[in-house]
Amino acid sequence: MNWLDEVNWDANGLVPVIAQEFDTGRVLMFAWMNREALQLTNESKQAVYWSRSRHKLWRKGEESGHTQKVHEIRLDCDEDVVLIKVEQIGGIACHTGRHNCFFKKLEQEKDAQARWLIDQPVIKDPKTIYHD
Amino acid sequence: MNWLDEVNWDANGLVPVIAQEFDTGRVLMFAWMNREALQLTNESKQAVYWSRSRHKLWRKGEESGHTQKVHEIRLDCDEDVVLIKVEQIGGIACHTGRHNCFFKKLEQEKDAQARWLIDQPVIKDPKTIYHD
Repeated sequence: MNWLDEVNWDANGLVPVIAQEFDTGRVLMFAWMNREALQLTNESKQAVYWSRSRHKLWRKGEESGHTQKVHEIRLDCDEDVVLIKVEQIGGIACHTGRHNCFFKKLEQEKDAQARWLIDQPVIKDPKTIYHD
Repeated sequence: MNWLDEVNWDANGLVPVIAQEFDTGRVLMFAWMNREALQLTNESKQAVYWSRSRHKLWRKGEESGHTQKVHEIRLDCDEDVVLIKVEQIGGIACHTGRHNCFFKKLEQEKDAQARWLIDQPVIKDPKTIYHD
């Protein structure tokens, strides 16, 4: 049986993917792959996702240079979630120019409503990363 | 603005959630929450998910005792993915009795097809965890 056939693709032929920094363990981002993206990711050892908004393959870093070198590919118990351990080239995974996408932390202040607070700096201005 | 209103819930009113072990950084599992689940998770500091198969709230560990004590709740750049950092009570997050759900690693042997290999032990027999 082909390893790609063991993945439980969803109704749209996609699987959710968690990208984790291989050495620090920090979660970098969350995205989706289709069968072709996962196959290309394994063959090239570079993360290739499926862009649900652009409806096409998304070779991570193709424009920014912030590619992800893949060290490990994992599948979960239900075979419907993929975890990849990657080396984030440039140290920036997020399109906002931050190290990773999870930079909003829920903070509960006494006698006030909880709110999302940004606790990670912008490493590089996105305007200098993307040239549209 | 209420912090729950800042989450970009999907068409089903859900958001994907990554649960990460707060001290080791290991990714434990992936699940979904609806608005009520996320609110309860924050209030109780115990992970509460939405079970898409059972169509009801799923208080993680309610049967197994393997609850997740929530240390941190994070939201990503697009406000459509949540990351929670948790303490996994009992050291078992997966229903297979393993530490976490990502126990299948893609292994590429020379001149052979890649295959998914299990590289994590069962800590506790699921039969002794769940009593149906």
